[in-house]
Amino acid sequence: VTVHLVGAGPGDPGLITARGLDLLRRCEVLVYDRLVAAELVDEAPPRALRIAREQLSQREVNEALVAYGRAGLEVVRLKGGDPFVFGRGGEEALALTEAGVPFQVVPGVSALAAVPAAAGIPVTHRDLASQATIVSGHAPAELDYQALAALTGTLIVFMGLAGLDQIVDRLLEAGKDPNTPAAVISNGTTPEQRTARGTLAEIPTQANALPPPALLVIGEVAALAAALRPSKLAKAAAAA
Amino acid sequence: VTVHLVGAGPGDPGLITARGLDLLRRCEVLVYDRLVAAELVDEAPPRALRIAREQLSQREVNEALVAYGRAGLEVVRLKGGDPFVFGRGGEEALALTEAGVPFQVVPGVSALAAVPAAAGIPVTHRDLASQATIVSGHAPAELDYQALAALTGTLIVFMGLAGLDQIVDRLLEAGKDPNTPAAVISNGTTPEQRTARGTLAEIPTQANALPPPALLVIGEVAALAAALRPSKLAKAAAAA
Repeated sequence: VTVHLVGAGPGDPGLITARGLDLLRRCEVLVYDRLVAAELVDEAPPRALRIAREQLSQREVNEALVAYGRAGLEVVRLKGGDPFVFGRGGEEALALTEAGVPFQVVPGVSALAAVPAAAGIPVTHRDLASQATIVSGHAPAELDYQALAALTGTLIVFMGLAGLDQIVDRLLEAGKDPNTPAAVISNGTTPEQRTARGTLAEIPTQANALPPPALLVIGEVAALAAALRPSKLAKAAAAA
Repeated sequence: VTVHLVGAGPGDPGLITARGLDLLRRCEVLVYDRLVAAELVDEAPPRALRIAREQLSQREVNEALVAYGRAGLEVVRLKGGDPFVFGRGGEEALALTEAGVPFQVVPGVSALAAVPAAAGIPVTHRDLASQATIVSGHAPAELDYQALAALTGTLIVFMGLAGLDQIVDRLLEAGKDPNTPAAVISNGTTPEQRTARGTLAEIPTQANALPPPALLVIGEVAALAAALRPSKLAKAAAAA
């Protein structure tokens, strides 16, 4: 295998997988996303070729992976979170398959549960939520708000900060209870983590000053955050 | 911090996080789930107290975590997948909070995306699925099939093997297209991984002989499995 699609985890560099870290430490080419922790980029060998993904289009990324893979180099494609949860890992995997280049997927810890957990919120919880739905909020006009408002369980919105007002308005119009607990977690699992809490109706105001990246969580479990606090000591340990 | 709720990942022992492995290697008490890889249980120090969770009720697990935590021992509670995705981590965290015992959550790679990925299926994929819903199938009579059938995107059912016939029948009755691609992945990410594929209508028959644990995936992305194959070499490496 020459190309490894590796999930870097949700932000905290300690949350990469043991295998992902191992591959990173002996790669020859590293293609990394903007949101990947600098500490992880530093784990690649000093002489490894480092390529920042943001300089490239998705097509150029695919081409680079195919070219370095064909050359037989050990390539790590390090992606924030999990490569297959809003990570466009499928597109890169398809490009490699079509080119006949062997590859391996090393999944990562997705923000979807890890970021709420870091704010004290379990995305599923007995008696409160036995299902969870994850959506991307990057194109809020395209979401089916009727179907989303009808769901029980927890709704988790990735990339929902820019469209937060619209997402909340449309959910309320579609009949979602304005008193449903909600939270926005910015820079989750990192030392810069900040959380806004409130009802669904309040959350756009509460989250007004938070910077991206952020995750929006809507559902009864968001109210657990107050009761279920990881210790401050734990946070300090996570930051170390 | 004395108690660590640690996700072990989806099966493959290489998919624990770097921090989780670190904590495991220096714990004094290990409470572990049945589905956790034996290789991970072996990573605990030889003199660590090992407690198999299956001998205990959930209440006894909570009490043990509180008692060892109060005693100031370094406790790792190692749970399959992610502690907060159908892992009942919330209940253990609440018990620790109520008892005033400091704890830390170390998230894990959930089966939800990692297991489909190991079968070549991205749970989200541009143009095919921009949302995903995860449900537990352990009590199939309690699911809201109308809402689930109305959803676009990928439906992922944990613990859905025992109730597979009922889940599929009810989804079809609720109007889900019988030609929707589906897959069942048994023992995903381990050397025993086996996958059944077919349409939604066919999948109960196709998956008939597969043993638990298994994940059911329903949606257009399931048809990608044929096109998007991780190399055999990669599978051998993952098994090593």
